Amino acid sequence: MKLETSKGMRDFPPEDKILRNQVVEKLTSVFEKYGYSPIETPVIERYEVLSAKAGAGDEADASKETFRLSDQGNRELGLRFELTLSFARFIGMNPNLKMPFKRYELGPVFRDGPIKLGRYRQFWQCDVDAVGAKTGLIDSEIIALALDVFKNLGLDSYIEVNNRKLLKGLIEFAGIDLKKADSIIITLDKIQKLGVDDVRKELEQKNISDDKIAKLLSVFNMQGSTAEKLAFLKGILLSELGKQGISELELVFSYLSDEQKKRVVFNPSLARGLGYYTGTIFEGFVKDSKVTSSICGGGRYDDMVSKLLGSDKDFPAIGISFGLDVICDVMKLSKSIVEKTVSKVFVIPIKTAMKSFEIVQEFRSAGINTDMDLCERGISKNLDYANSLGIPFVVFVGPKELEAGKVKLRDMVSGKEELLSVKDVIKKLK
Amino acid sequence: MKLETSKGMRDFPPEDKILRNQVVEKLTSVFEKYGYSPIETPVIERYEVLSAKAGAGDEADASKETFRLSDQGNRELGLRFELTLSFARFIGMNPNLKMPFKRYELGPVFRDGPIKLGRYRQFWQCDVDAVGAKTGLIDSEIIALALDVFKNLGLDSYIEVNNRKLLKGLIEFAGIDLKKADSIIITLDKIQKLGVDDVRKELEQKNISDDKIAKLLSVFNMQGSTAEKLAFLKGILLSELGKQGISELELVFSYLSDEQKKRVVFNPSLARGLGYYTGTIFEGFVKDSKVTSSICGGGRYDDMVSKLLGSDKDFPAIGISFGLDVICDVMKLSKSIVEKTVSKVFVIPIKTAMKSFEIVQEFRSAGINTDMDLCERGISKNLDYANSLGIPFVVFVGPKELEAGKVKLRDMVSGKEELLSVKDVIKKLK
Repeated sequence: MKLETSKGMRDFPPEDKILRNQVVEKLTSVFEKYGYSPIETPVIERYEVLSAKAGAGDEADASKETFRLSDQGNRELGLRFELTLSFARFIGMNPNLKMPFKRYELGPVFRDGPIKLGRYRQFWQCDVDAVGAKTGLIDSEIIALALDVFKNLGLDSYIEVNNRKLLKGLIEFAGIDLKKADSIIITLDKIQKLGVDDVRKELEQKNISDDKIAKLLSVFNMQGSTAEKLAFLKGILLSELGKQGISELELVFSYLSDEQKKRVVFNPSLARGLGYYTGTIFEGFVKDSKVTSSICGGGRYDDMVSKLLGSDKDFPAIGISFGLDVICDVMKLSKSIVEKTVSKVFVIPIKTAMKSFEIVQEFRSAGINTDMDLCERGISKNLDYANSLGIPFVVFVGPKELEAGKVKLRDMVSGKEELLSVKDVIKKLK
Repeated sequence: MKLETSKGMRDFPPEDKILRNQVVEKLTSVFEKYGYSPIETPVIERYEVLSAKAGAGDEADASKETFRLSDQGNRELGLRFELTLSFARFIGMNPNLKMPFKRYELGPVFRDGPIKLGRYRQFWQCDVDAVGAKTGLIDSEIIALALDVFKNLGLDSYIEVNNRKLLKGLIEFAGIDLKKADSIIITLDKIQKLGVDDVRKELEQKNISDDKIAKLLSVFNMQGSTAEKLAFLKGILLSELGKQGISELELVFSYLSDEQKKRVVFNPSLARGLGYYTGTIFEGFVKDSKVTSSICGGGRYDDMVSKLLGSDKDFPAIGISFGLDVICDVMKLSKSIVEKTVSKVFVIPIKTAMKSFEIVQEFRSAGINTDMDLCERGISKNLDYANSLGIPFVVFVGPKELEAGKVKLRDMVSGKEELLSVKDVIKKLK
């Protein structure tokens, strides 16, 4: 057997998975505080669902990157490349769901694409979506949720906000045909990554005249507070779409507290690549980190679900997706200590295996993550083991100490040792 | 788009996934108390790894049920059908792991097999394994861990224990050629499901003579305590393997407390189908439940990892696997209330959306899972919504109450209403 993972796949050893679990716990506790409930959809979907036009596949080429397979009945299947399509299918299959339906789902998604640094073929998405509520409170709620996630993770972060209707209003303002809007938005999406000059070139290649490009890009130089920017835009965006975009944004900002607004930046050039967004869009970033890519993103997609389901019912929807891998990268950079094990104490029996096993059970019953020597090794080998895993405490259980009703607790950082009763060790370690 | 999941796959709506998450939380907290750390391996593996002979595929035909696929580079891949093969690959790829290495992994596995009631093509395994420690303390530790899992889940359960060497000793005792041992063990595995008569027939079909079958099966009629059974077996099992099996079992029992022994049953006919077990084996069951199949099972597999890796190094190993789906089935039967949402309180603004949003944020900051009206509905529609989701409390925020610095809390079960300050509501709900 050749010892390797398949291309683009990776293992997470304890030092990575412990951190991943901590991040997942922090994410989901915030999701639940906001009243979002968990669901789970399968990894394998019918290929027809995955190749539905309205999904992310539209221009992310995700459908080209779908891992395809079939079952023994020769059904055409695929591995999901995002969670949103499965969510839409779930909505369609459950017509009696109480609306609004607020759910979160975490899990691996798969893309059979090129491998780059930090780009894998299996990665986790953590999606929070609500269907059944129009723009207003819930858009603000999702933004507040993202801010709470950052806070809970201890990340100095902010969220950029824009509106797709406003963006289309800007395209109209520049005199560009709205039919080109989707294509223009894909180019604008690259401003942060490529810079204004490259975006200008790409727009030229898309046959937009220089004066229209200049008019469009000039707006992005706006300075001032969110209120000032919106006031300025009110003066120039006179189309129906533009006006609607501004008023939607104003509504979303109106619910946020002053404290929250400090971390919310109105960025009129924020585009988000995906074709299905219809209103509020947002993207979250970490300040002063080596990781410059966004750690979450999302927006409102009011048409997608009904289009996918071929339904004439309205399914206004909004969602945000957190990238577990990128968040873990950021957290890793900010952590000084890497946890290699969940164990808080390691028990070393000195010819007292039976009694030690009992004491270990007492520690565990008290809720302390406890490991013990299972190989009858000598003391120094056991200390090496505990040390290399970074277990903070060791307990020696020797016959002499036991006679006195005690065990020896050693602090592995300071090296300090104490004779204590089992009860006192528990008190100390809890 | 046809609205269905692919065959053998299913969705877990909130009422199922909330329970699943609770069970996962209870399982992993016990795993960690016993010093097992989490790892994550990918869903997709190279087909060569999945088709390795020593895996469960041996006679579970799992390799025939492997979902196969390929990537854009035409590599032969497959979806994992168990977690143990990936664990063995992980061990092989990380030669510097400190031994013993104790890990747990939870996640979906996939089998392209026939669909029956309760049998799906995607299901979760929760595996706890340790590699690098020989029979002794750690076998007892795994049994103690299973008992603690039952306790933490509130299940009245017990664990049956046997030993593969002892089982082979019994086969020798009956005068049957040891070459047939693996085949006999597969048949014995069916005693609980099919009964003694069908097992007898199957053994006859395998060309075992009637007197040998009678001798083998007679032992399983043994009555008495574990100690009495072991004493009896000591008298009749005189081969090397039989003796070793008895002494290994005695060692494993020796570490267990009297309290633990009450839930551990020595069952000499317990076989476990898989070919790779070498010593202690066990299987856990729930008492007095409609669910009669085992909820966990495992054992010692001292040769498998080195065989798989083609290594001459020793990798003694033991593991236990909990079936998340069957445990959730049991839990569902014992629960009177199904939780449909994580929300503990639902806030209804009465023309106070802005102030209500603020109050909702206060509840959330206090750690209370809170939802609110996001659609500007009337009071009765909102009460219907909260009611149908089973949210236990509703808070009305009206202008009059706000003037008095209060809100109205309604207990949705008793119907009782109180005027309280936001702070007092928080106190009450926490």
